[in-house]
Amino acid sequence: MSSGDSRGRTQVRRLPEKQVTDREALNEVLDASRVGHLAVSESDQPYVLPVGYGRDGDHVIVHGSTGSRLFRALADGVPTCFTVTVLDGLVLARSAFESSMHYRSAMVLGSCENVPDADKSRCLEVLTEHLMPGRWAQLRAPHAKELAATTLLRLPLVEWSVKVSAGWPDDPVEDLDEPVWAGVVPITSAFGAPVATPDLRGNVEPPWYLSQWTP
Amino acid sequence: MSSGDSRGRTQVRRLPEKQVTDREALNEVLDASRVGHLAVSESDQPYVLPVGYGRDGDHVIVHGSTGSRLFRALADGVPTCFTVTVLDGLVLARSAFESSMHYRSAMVLGSCENVPDADKSRCLEVLTEHLMPGRWAQLRAPHAKELAATTLLRLPLVEWSVKVSAGWPDDPVEDLDEPVWAGVVPITSAFGAPVATPDLRGNVEPPWYLSQWTP
Repeated sequence: MSSGDSRGRTQVRRLPEKQVTDREALNEVLDASRVGHLAVSESDQPYVLPVGYGRDGDHVIVHGSTGSRLFRALADGVPTCFTVTVLDGLVLARSAFESSMHYRSAMVLGSCENVPDADKSRCLEVLTEHLMPGRWAQLRAPHAKELAATTLLRLPLVEWSVKVSAGWPDDPVEDLDEPVWAGVVPITSAFGAPVATPDLRGNVEPPWYLSQWTP
Repeated sequence: MSSGDSRGRTQVRRLPEKQVTDREALNEVLDASRVGHLAVSESDQPYVLPVGYGRDGDHVIVHGSTGSRLFRALADGVPTCFTVTVLDGLVLARSAFESSMHYRSAMVLGSCENVPDADKSRCLEVLTEHLMPGRWAQLRAPHAKELAATTLLRLPLVEWSVKVSAGWPDDPVEDLDEPVWAGVVPITSAFGAPVATPDLRGNVEPPWYLSQWTP
Protein backbone atom coordinates (compact mmCIF):
# COMPACT_ATOMS: atom_id res chain seq x y z
CA MET A 1 0.00 0.00 0.00
CA SER A 2 1.44 3.34 -0.95
CA SER A 3 0.27 6.77 -0.01
CA GLY A 4 -1.62 6.86 -3.27
CA ASP A 5 -4.07 4.23 -2.03
CA SER A 6 -7.17 6.18 -1.12
CA ARG A 7 -8.36 3.43 1.22
CA GLY A 8 -5.07 3.33 3.06
CA ARG A 9 -4.33 4.23 6.62
CA THR A 10 -1.87 6.80 5.38
CA GLN A 11 -4.41 8.63 3.25
CA VAL A 12 -4.33 12.27 4.34
CA ARG A 13 -7.90 13.19 5.18
CA ARG A 14 -7.32 16.57 6.73
CA LEU A 15 -6.07 19.20 4.30
CA PRO A 16 -5.54 16.60 1.56
CA GLU A 17 -4.19 19.29 -0.77
CA LYS A 18 -1.01 19.14 1.29
CA GLN A 19 -0.43 15.47 0.51
CA VAL A 20 2.40 14.59 -1.82
CA THR A 21 2.38 11.11 -3.29
CA ASP A 22 5.61 10.66 -5.19
CA ARG A 23 8.32 8.57 -3.68
CA GLU A 24 11.03 11.11 -4.39
CA ALA A 25 9.28 13.52 -2.04
CA LEU A 26 9.45 10.90 0.72
CA ASN A 27 13.18 10.49 0.17
CA GLU A 28 13.65 14.26 0.27
CA VAL A 29 11.94 14.61 3.64
CA LEU A 30 13.80 11.67 5.12
CA ASP A 31 17.09 12.90 3.74
CA ALA A 32 16.50 16.42 5.13
CA SER A 33 16.59 15.48 8.80
CA ARG A 34 18.55 13.39 11.30
CA VAL A 35 16.07 12.75 14.11
CA GLY A 36 12.67 11.14 13.75
CA HIS A 37 10.03 10.06 16.23
CA LEU A 38 9.33 6.36 16.52
CA ALA A 39 6.30 4.99 18.35
CA VAL A 40 5.55 1.75 20.10
CA SER A 41 2.40 0.87 22.01
CA GLU A 42 2.06 -1.27 25.10
CA SER A 43 -1.49 -1.97 26.25
CA ASP A 44 -2.86 1.00 24.29
CA GLN A 45 -0.26 3.35 25.76
CA PRO A 46 1.88 4.77 22.96
CA TYR A 47 5.45 5.87 23.59
CA VAL A 48 7.17 8.24 21.19
CA LEU A 49 10.96 8.04 21.12
CA PRO A 50 13.30 10.44 19.34
CA VAL A 51 15.80 8.43 17.29
CA GLY A 52 18.65 9.16 14.95
CA TYR A 53 18.11 7.42 11.65
CA GLY A 54 19.39 6.87 8.16
CA ARG A 55 17.83 5.75 4.89
CA ASP A 56 19.03 2.62 3.14
CA GLY A 57 17.19 2.64 -0.17
CA ASP A 58 13.71 1.40 0.65
CA HIS A 59 14.25 1.17 4.41
CA VAL A 60 14.69 3.51 7.32
CA ILE A 61 17.48 2.34 9.63
CA VAL A 62 17.31 3.22 13.31
CA HIS A 63 19.48 2.06 16.13
CA GLY A 64 18.98 1.50 19.79
CA SER A 65 20.37 -0.51 22.61
CA THR A 66 19.76 -4.22 23.11
CA GLY A 67 18.98 -3.23 26.71
CA SER A 68 15.97 -1.08 25.82
CA ARG A 69 12.59 -2.65 26.50
CA LEU A 70 10.84 -0.56 23.87
CA PHE A 71 13.49 -1.35 21.27
CA ARG A 72 13.13 -5.04 22.02
CA ALA A 73 9.40 -4.75 21.36
CA LEU A 74 10.14 -2.97 18.09
CA ALA A 75 12.60 -5.71 17.15
CA ASP A 76 9.83 -8.24 17.78
CA GLY A 77 7.85 -6.56 15.02
CA VAL A 78 5.07 -4.74 16.88
CA PRO A 79 3.27 -2.15 14.72
CA THR A 80 5.10 1.13 14.66
CA CYS A 81 4.93 4.61 13.20
CA PHE A 82 7.95 6.66 12.30
CA THR A 83 7.45 10.37 11.71
CA VAL A 84 9.96 12.94 10.53
CA THR A 85 9.06 16.62 10.56
CA VAL A 86 11.07 19.56 9.27
CA LEU A 87 9.84 22.98 10.32
CA ASP A 88 10.54 25.51 7.57
CA GLY A 89 8.80 28.65 8.76
CA LEU A 90 5.91 30.39 10.43
CA VAL A 91 2.91 31.58 8.43
CA LEU A 92 1.51 34.80 9.86
CA ALA A 93 -2.06 35.18 8.65
CA ARG A 94 -4.48 38.01 9.50
CA SER A 95 -6.20 35.80 12.05
CA ALA A 96 -5.07 33.28 14.63
CA PHE A 97 -7.33 30.75 12.94
CA GLU A 98 -5.48 30.89 9.62
CA SER A 99 -2.00 31.20 11.14
CA SER A 100 0.05 28.10 10.48
CA MET A 101 3.50 26.79 9.72
CA HIS A 102 5.57 25.72 6.77
CA TYR A 103 6.67 22.16 7.28
CA ARG A 104 7.53 18.94 5.54
CA SER A 105 6.46 15.77 7.27
CA ALA A 106 6.71 12.07 6.48
CA MET A 107 4.86 9.31 8.32
CA VAL A 108 5.77 5.66 7.81
CA LEU A 109 3.64 2.81 9.16
CA GLY A 110 4.77 -0.76 9.44
CA SER A 111 6.85 -3.13 11.51
CA CYS A 112 10.57 -3.11 12.08
CA GLU A 113 12.82 -6.09 11.74
CA ASN A 114 16.30 -6.69 13.03
CA VAL A 115 19.06 -6.03 10.57
CA PRO A 116 20.74 -9.44 10.08
CA ASP A 117 24.18 -9.72 11.65
CA ALA A 118 25.84 -10.02 8.25
CA ASP A 119 24.41 -6.64 7.25
CA LYS A 120 24.94 -4.78 10.51
CA SER A 121 28.24 -3.14 9.71
CA ARG A 122 27.02 -1.90 6.34
CA CYS A 123 23.81 -0.49 7.86
CA LEU A 124 25.79 1.18 10.64
CA GLU A 125 27.80 2.81 7.85
CA VAL A 126 24.58 3.98 6.16
CA LEU A 127 23.36 5.42 9.47
CA THR A 128 26.66 7.12 10.28
CA GLU A 129 26.92 8.57 6.79
CA HIS A 130 23.38 9.90 7.00
CA LEU A 131 24.11 11.66 10.27
CA MET A 132 27.73 12.65 9.60
CA PRO A 133 28.57 12.33 5.90
CA GLY A 134 32.22 11.52 5.29
CA ARG A 135 32.84 10.31 8.83
CA TRP A 136 32.75 6.54 8.34
CA ALA A 137 35.91 6.36 6.23
CA GLN A 138 37.86 8.10 8.98
CA LEU A 139 36.75 5.87 11.82
CA ARG A 140 38.14 2.53 12.89
CA ALA A 141 35.94 -0.47 12.08
CA PRO A 142 33.40 -1.36 14.77
CA HIS A 143 34.45 -4.02 17.25
CA ALA A 144 32.43 -7.22 17.33
CA LYS A 145 31.24 -6.45 20.86
CA GLU A 146 30.04 -3.01 19.74
CA LEU A 147 28.01 -4.55 16.93
CA ALA A 148 26.60 -7.11 19.37
CA ALA A 149 25.51 -4.34 21.75
CA THR A 150 23.75 -2.36 19.02
CA THR A 151 20.22 -3.10 17.91
CA LEU A 152 19.84 -2.00 14.31
CA LEU A 153 16.27 -2.02 13.04
CA ARG A 154 14.97 -1.46 9.56
CA LEU A 155 11.49 -0.28 8.67
CA PRO A 156 10.37 -0.78 5.06
CA LEU A 157 9.15 2.27 3.15
CA VAL A 158 5.94 0.65 1.94
CA GLU A 159 3.06 2.38 3.71
CA TRP A 160 3.76 6.06 4.05
CA SER A 161 2.48 9.57 3.50
CA VAL A 162 4.14 12.93 3.00
CA LYS A 163 2.65 16.31 3.74
CA VAL A 164 4.19 19.58 2.66
CA SER A 165 2.88 22.95 3.73
CA ALA A 166 4.59 25.73 1.81
CA GLY A 167 1.93 28.25 0.80
CA TRP A 168 1.00 31.81 1.65
CA PRO A 169 -1.50 32.66 4.37
CA ASP A 170 -4.94 31.58 3.22
CA ASP A 171 -6.99 34.42 4.63
CA PRO A 172 -10.61 34.80 3.59
CA VAL A 173 -11.27 37.90 1.51
CA GLU A 174 -13.10 39.63 4.35
CA ASP A 175 -9.88 39.61 6.39
CA LEU A 176 -7.63 41.13 3.74
CA ASP A 177 -8.15 44.67 5.00
CA GLU A 178 -7.12 43.80 8.55
CA PRO A 179 -4.41 46.33 9.48
CA VAL A 180 -1.76 43.73 10.16
CA TRP A 181 1.29 42.42 8.33
CA ALA A 182 0.94 38.96 6.86
CA GLY A 183 3.49 36.65 5.31
CA VAL A 184 6.03 33.98 6.04
CA VAL A 185 8.99 34.03 8.42
CA PRO A 186 11.43 31.33 7.29
CA ILE A 187 13.31 29.16 9.78
CA THR A 188 16.74 27.88 8.89
CA SER A 189 19.27 25.71 10.65
CA ALA A 190 23.03 26.02 10.55
CA PHE A 191 26.08 24.35 12.00
CA GLY A 192 28.17 26.39 14.39
CA ALA A 193 31.96 26.27 14.64
CA PRO A 194 33.18 22.81 15.70
CA VAL A 195 34.43 22.58 19.29
CA ALA A 196 37.22 20.08 19.95
CA THR A 197 36.83 17.71 22.87
CA PRO A 198 39.14 18.59 25.79
CA ASP A 199 40.98 15.27 25.58
CA LEU A 200 41.80 15.54 21.88
CA ARG A 201 45.32 14.24 21.31
CA GLY A 202 47.78 15.28 18.66
CA ASN A 203 47.46 18.17 16.31
CA VAL A 204 44.26 17.14 14.56
CA GLU A 205 42.17 19.69 12.70
CA PRO A 206 38.39 19.45 12.26
CA PRO A 207 37.71 17.33 9.18
CA TRP A 208 37.19 18.88 5.76
CA TYR A 209 33.76 17.34 5.28
CA LEU A 210 32.17 19.46 8.01
CA SER A 211 31.96 22.32 5.52
CA GLN A 212 29.84 20.12 3.24
CA TRP A 213 27.22 19.29 5.83
CA THR A 214 23.69 20.59 5.70
CA PRO A 215 21.84 20.70 8.99
CA MET B 1 3.62 10.34 39.23
CA SER B 2 6.56 12.51 38.35
CA SER B 3 9.71 11.55 36.53
CA GLY B 4 11.33 11.09 39.91
CA ASP B 5 9.24 7.98 40.61
CA SER B 6 11.61 5.12 39.98
CA ARG B 7 8.73 2.70 39.35
CA GLY B 8 7.14 5.03 36.83
CA ARG B 9 6.62 4.49 33.13
CA THR B 10 8.66 7.60 32.49
CA GLN B 11 11.69 6.40 34.41
CA VAL B 12 14.65 6.61 32.05
CA ARG B 13 16.25 3.17 32.04
CA ARG B 14 18.70 3.61 29.21
CA LEU B 15 21.48 6.10 29.93
CA PRO B 16 19.78 7.24 33.16
CA GLU B 17 22.57 9.77 33.74
CA LYS B 18 20.90 11.86 31.04
CA GLN B 19 17.64 12.12 32.96
CA VAL B 20 16.74 15.46 34.48
CA THR B 21 14.02 15.47 37.09
CA ASP B 22 13.26 19.07 37.95
CA ARG B 23 10.14 20.61 36.61
CA GLU B 24 11.90 23.76 35.44
CA ALA B 25 13.87 21.61 32.98
CA LEU B 26 10.60 20.32 31.54
CA ASN B 27 9.35 23.85 31.04
CA GLU B 28 12.61 24.82 29.36
CA VAL B 29 12.39 22.01 26.81
CA LEU B 30 8.72 22.69 26.08
CA ASP B 31 9.34 26.41 25.81
CA ALA B 32 12.29 25.87 23.43
CA SER B 33 10.29 24.39 20.56
CA ARG B 34 7.09 24.89 18.58
CA VAL B 35 6.34 21.46 17.15
CA GLY B 36 5.94 18.25 19.13
CA HIS B 37 4.94 14.72 18.19
CA LEU B 38 1.68 13.41 19.58
CA ALA B 39 0.74 9.74 19.43
CA VAL B 40 -2.54 7.88 19.38
CA SER B 41 -3.02 4.15 19.02
CA GLU B 42 -5.81 2.32 17.25
CA SER B 43 -5.80 -1.47 17.61
CA ASP B 44 -2.11 -1.49 18.60
CA GLN B 45 -1.16 0.66 15.61
CA PRO B 46 0.38 3.91 16.84
CA TYR B 47 0.17 7.08 14.79
CA VAL B 48 2.58 9.94 15.43
CA LEU B 49 1.36 13.38 14.43
CA PRO B 50 3.41 16.55 14.33
CA VAL B 51 1.52 19.31 16.13
CA GLY B 52 2.08 22.92 17.03
CA TYR B 53 1.68 23.43 20.73
CA GLY B 54 1.86 25.87 23.59
CA ARG B 55 2.28 25.53 27.34
CA ASP B 56 -0.37 26.82 29.71
CA GLY B 57 1.19 26.43 33.14
CA ASP B 58 0.78 22.74 33.96
CA HIS B 59 -0.72 21.75 30.62
CA VAL B 60 0.39 21.39 27.05
CA ILE B 61 -2.15 22.87 24.64
CA VAL B 62 -2.45 21.42 21.14
CA HIS B 63 -4.97 22.15 18.48
CA GLY B 64 -6.45 20.20 15.67
CA SER B 65 -9.56 20.04 13.58
CA THR B 66 -12.89 18.74 14.76
CA GLY B 67 -12.89 16.78 11.48
CA SER B 68 -9.80 14.73 12.34
CA ARG B 69 -10.49 11.13 13.37
CA LEU B 70 -7.29 10.88 15.39
CA PHE B 71 -7.95 14.18 17.16
CA ARG B 72 -11.44 13.01 18.04
CA ALA B 73 -9.91 9.90 19.64
CA LEU B 74 -7.50 12.10 21.57
CA ALA B 75 -10.39 14.30 22.69
CA ASP B 76 -12.11 11.14 23.97
CA GLY B 77 -9.19 10.66 26.32
CA VAL B 78 -7.32 7.70 24.85
CA PRO B 79 -3.80 7.28 26.27
CA THR B 80 -1.31 9.48 24.49
CA CYS B 81 2.34 10.42 24.47
CA PHE B 82 3.63 13.84 23.54
CA THR B 83 7.34 14.17 22.79
CA VAL B 84 9.33 17.31 22.06
CA THR B 85 12.92 17.04 20.88
CA VAL B 86 15.41 19.81 20.27
CA LEU B 87 18.56 18.81 18.40
CA ASP B 88 21.50 20.90 19.61
CA GLY B 89 24.47 19.34 17.90
CA LEU B 90 26.37 16.33 16.65
CA VAL B 91 28.91 14.55 18.84
CA LEU B 92 31.80 13.22 16.77
CA ALA B 93 33.54 10.49 18.76
CA ARG B 94 36.53 8.41 17.69
CA SER B 95 34.21 5.51 16.83
CA ALA B 96 30.81 5.17 15.21
CA PHE B 97 29.66 3.36 18.35
CA GLU B 98 30.29 6.36 20.62
CA SER B 99 29.12 8.99 18.13
CA SER B 100 25.93 10.63 19.26
CA MET B 101 23.98 13.86 19.38
CA HIS B 102 23.34 16.72 21.74
CA TYR B 103 19.64 16.98 22.33
CA ARG B 104 17.00 17.94 24.83
CA SER B 105 13.88 15.81 24.87
CA ALA B 106 10.69 15.77 26.91
CA MET B 107 8.13 12.96 26.94
CA VAL B 108 4.71 13.44 28.51
CA LEU B 109 2.31 10.54 29.07
CA GLY B 110 -1.35 10.90 29.88
CA SER B 111 -4.71 11.64 28.36
CA CYS B 112 -5.91 14.81 26.71
CA GLU B 113 -9.16 16.52 27.48
CA ASN B 114 -11.09 19.10 25.54
CA VAL B 115 -10.52 22.66 26.59
CA PRO B 116 -13.94 23.86 27.82
CA ASP B 117 -15.63 26.34 25.51
CA ALA B 118 -15.33 29.12 28.09
CA ASP B 119 -11.54 28.72 28.08
CA LYS B 120 -11.02 28.22 24.36
CA SER B 121 -10.20 31.78 23.41
CA ARG B 122 -7.70 32.16 26.25
CA CYS B 123 -5.99 28.86 25.34
CA LEU B 124 -5.86 29.86 21.69
CA GLU B 125 -4.09 33.01 22.86
CA VAL B 126 -1.61 30.91 24.86
CA LEU B 127 -0.97 28.75 21.80
CA THR B 128 -0.62 31.69 19.44
CA GLU B 129 1.70 33.50 21.83
CA HIS B 130 3.86 30.40 22.22
CA LEU B 131 4.24 30.08 18.46
CA MET B 132 4.33 33.78 17.57
CA PRO B 133 4.93 35.93 20.64
CA GLY B 134 3.35 39.38 20.39
CA ARG B 135 1.00 38.37 17.59
CA TRP B 136 -2.26 37.90 19.49
CA ALA B 137 -2.67 41.56 20.45
CA GLN B 138 -2.47 42.55 16.77
CA LEU B 139 -5.05 40.10 15.50
CA ARG B 140 -8.81 40.43 15.46
CA ALA B 141 -10.67 38.30 17.99
CA PRO B 142 -11.57 34.80 16.77
CA HIS B 143 -15.05 34.40 15.31
CA ALA B 144 -17.42 32.04 17.09
CA LYS B 145 -17.46 29.73 14.09
CA GLU B 146 -13.66 29.58 14.09
CA LEU B 147 -13.62 28.58 17.75
CA ALA B 148 -16.30 25.99 17.04
CA ALA B 149 -14.20 24.48 14.23
CA THR B 150 -11.09 24.23 16.38
CA THR B 151 -10.41 21.34 18.72
CA LEU B 152 -8.22 22.54 21.53
CA LEU B 153 -6.84 19.78 23.72
CA ARG B 154 -4.89 20.03 26.93
CA LEU B 155 -2.56 17.40 28.32
CA PRO B 156 -1.60 17.68 31.99
CA LEU B 157 2.09 17.77 32.84
CA VAL B 158 1.90 15.08 35.51
CA GLU B 159 3.74 12.05 34.15
CA TRP B 160 6.80 13.11 32.23
CA SER B 161 10.51 12.70 31.74
CA VAL B 162 13.25 14.91 30.39
CA LYS B 163 16.51 13.80 28.90
CA VAL B 164 19.39 16.11 28.11
CA SER B 165 22.50 15.02 26.27
CA ALA B 166 25.13 17.74 26.34
CA GLY B 167 28.48 16.12 27.07
CA TRP B 168 31.72 15.47 25.23
CA PRO B 169 32.37 12.28 23.30
CA ASP B 170 32.71 9.43 25.77
CA ASP B 171 35.45 7.45 24.06
CA PRO B 172 37.13 4.61 25.92
CA VAL B 173 40.76 5.28 26.75
CA GLU B 174 41.99 2.79 24.16
CA ASP B 175 40.44 4.93 21.41
CA LEU B 176 42.01 8.25 22.45
CA ASP B 177 44.98 7.82 20.14
CA GLU B 178 42.84 7.25 17.08
CA PRO B 179 44.10 9.75 14.46
CA VAL B 180 40.77 11.50 14.06
CA TRP B 181 39.27 14.78 15.24
CA ALA B 182 36.65 14.50 17.96
CA GLY B 183 34.32 17.07 19.43
CA VAL B 184 30.95 18.68 19.04
CA VAL B 185 29.43 20.46 16.05
CA PRO B 186 26.62 22.71 17.33
CA ILE B 187 23.36 23.12 15.44
CA THR B 188 21.49 26.39 15.67
CA SER B 189 18.27 27.68 14.19
CA ALA B 190 17.52 31.18 13.02
CA PHE B 191 14.71 33.15 11.47
CA GLY B 192 15.24 34.44 7.96
CA ALA B 193 13.99 37.77 6.65
CA PRO B 194 10.18 37.93 6.69
CA VAL B 195 8.51 37.65 3.26
CA ALA B 196 5.25 39.56 2.80
CA THR B 197 2.32 37.71 1.29
CA PRO B 198 1.58 38.83 -2.31
CA ASP B 199 -1.90 40.06 -1.39
CA LEU B 200 -0.76 42.28 1.48
CA ARG B 201 -2.76 45.50 1.41
CA GLY B 202 -1.70 48.93 2.58
CA ASN B 203 1.75 49.99 3.60
CA VAL B 204 2.24 47.59 6.49
CA GLU B 205 5.71 46.81 7.76
CA PRO B 206 6.69 43.50 9.38
CA PRO B 207 5.92 43.74 13.09
CA TRP B 208 8.51 44.81 15.63
CA TYR B 209 8.20 41.64 17.66
CA LEU B 210 9.75 39.46 14.96
CA SER B 211 13.18 40.68 16.10
CA GLN B 212 12.45 39.30 19.57
CA TRP B 213 11.64 35.79 18.44
CA THR B 214 13.87 32.83 19.13
CA PRO B 215 13.48 29.88 16.79
